[in-house]
Amino acid sequence: MKNVAVMGAGNVGIYAAKAVLESKDMRLCGFIRRKEDAVEGFCNVPVASAAERLPVRPDGVIICVPSRRTEAAAKYLLSLGINTVDACDLHEELPRIRRELHEAALRGGAAAVTGAGWDPGLDSSIRALLAFALPCGVTHTQFGPGISMGHSAAVKALEGVADAVSVTIPAGGNSHRRRVYAALIPKADPKAVEHAILHDGYFEHDSTEVIFTDDLSPYKSHAHGVKIVREGYALGEGGQRLAFEMSINNPAVTAQIMTAALRAGFARRPGCYLLPEFSPAELFGKEPGGVL
Amino acid sequence: MKNVAVMGAGNVGIYAAKAVLESKDMRLCGFIRRKEDAVEGFCNVPVASAAERLPVRPDGVIICVPSRRTEAAAKYLLSLGINTVDACDLHEELPRIRRELHEAALRGGAAAVTGAGWDPGLDSSIRALLAFALPCGVTHTQFGPGISMGHSAAVKALEGVADAVSVTIPAGGNSHRRRVYAALIPKADPKAVEHAILHDGYFEHDSTEVIFTDDLSPYKSHAHGVKIVREGYALGEGGQRLAFEMSINNPAVTAQIMTAALRAGFARRPGCYLLPEFSPAELFGKEPGGVL
Repeated sequence: MKNVAVMGAGNVGIYAAKAVLESKDMRLCGFIRRKEDAVEGFCNVPVASAAERLPVRPDGVIICVPSRRTEAAAKYLLSLGINTVDACDLHEELPRIRRELHEAALRGGAAAVTGAGWDPGLDSSIRALLAFALPCGVTHTQFGPGISMGHSAAVKALEGVADAVSVTIPAGGNSHRRRVYAALIPKADPKAVEHAILHDGYFEHDSTEVIFTDDLSPYKSHAHGVKIVREGYALGEGGQRLAFEMSINNPAVTAQIMTAALRAGFARRPGCYLLPEFSPAELFGKEPGGVL
Repeated sequence: MKNVAVMGAGNVGIYAAKAVLESKDMRLCGFIRRKEDAVEGFCNVPVASAAERLPVRPDGVIICVPSRRTEAAAKYLLSLGINTVDACDLHEELPRIRRELHEAALRGGAAAVTGAGWDPGLDSSIRALLAFALPCGVTHTQFGPGISMGHSAAVKALEGVADAVSVTIPAGGNSHRRRVYAALIPKADPKAVEHAILHDGYFEHDSTEVIFTDDLSPYKSHAHGVKIVREGYALGEGGQRLAFEMSINNPAVTAQIMTAALRAGFARRPGCYLLPEFSPAELFGKEPGGVL
């Protein structure tokens, strides 16, 4: 039985706590968040602003903070010898982050899994399998329409923004448009906020439209999805086509994947791993009879 | 550089030989088949009726014989210390076959990969990943319409059959109908052949129609496909849906997967492995940057 804490109590954090409560091999030993108030719906679960201040030391932490803060959080926890999992979605930075967390994990004698959400994460495993089965071909990943949690969190972190939702709109191939609904704090300058959004790394490569509104409630859906298509040829035969599609509750499935990835990490030696480095059998965690 | 031989020179064997020729890390050192004539299109490639009789000893063999003969072939090759891969599709027997090949592999000091086609094989890995991401749910696998190589080979092996093609027709959920087109040898009894087909393990659980004809050419397509759908709920949220779909040249993609699985086996310790026991990163074989 492993003691597991959840860092962050946003949408993903709440679902991660539920996933731990549903796990027979894990015990929810607390939330870690700045504000040390009880988390709604989890009034008996300890809350502390640091892992060391929880009444029971966690063996692992599910890191559910914005992607730009996961690296520092993981390094700190790994230095205490605590296993981590995060769903950091900074795709291009992941190879570097993974190397640095690997060093930190070896020093701390713990295991980290990074980029372990649905994309990167599950989708990365799928893309690797598609390329294995069809080495000659092109893979297209198309998200949405749906709310990107990573993009929304990036906007919420900008100065002048009270709340935000970023909608991902598929625009063909591997490209996407973004529509950001943002509520400003009093006296914030909309021009400055729009400029900051358009020049943020999450948005600068996409066509992005910013809409200011005080009521974000119509846009706060959890529905998201992806379609990954690989088409190519096999040994001279054209027209081969492999596709993966999913329609999900974004924070719920993210939390489910992270919890299972933390579990897989407990069985590994110290180091930092990416989800495609775990075998499907290992992640599935049962005798493979049912899937053969 | 590994010397690789192909056992069998049917549809899959021919494509497997092409896959080896396309592989920079493999050298095609021969075909192993009963009839020691040159294989059409590969007139300079040695042919022998046993691995020991090839001019160059293979490091690995891609076993492309009917599923009911792969186990004996693999055991023999493993006893010689030669790595193997097969795409045996006897789903229910695979756990037993795997255990027995594992013993043989340990004794011979070689690695085997069994059930490594597209189903079982790639699809097994996909089903395991879907169940990992969505632990509460039901997976439906629906094949075709298309020619089942396993079922066709099983009919061809029956007494009185000159040639056969078995078409898989999706019938909802995990169920399928079968339509068998069979050409008889002179004086064979159609009633006896039909009885043997309907009571063969490949057909006894499905609704099967047998049609006798002398001209099978209209039915000899290589197109096949599958749709795997998992639907369920995540942490109380219903309506989650994950799907995998593929439309392929059956023997070409099978050969591609087997060749890559043999490659992955070369990097493993002696033993017998199933495809879902290899990580997607390991099967992909390159730096994961491209799939993250």
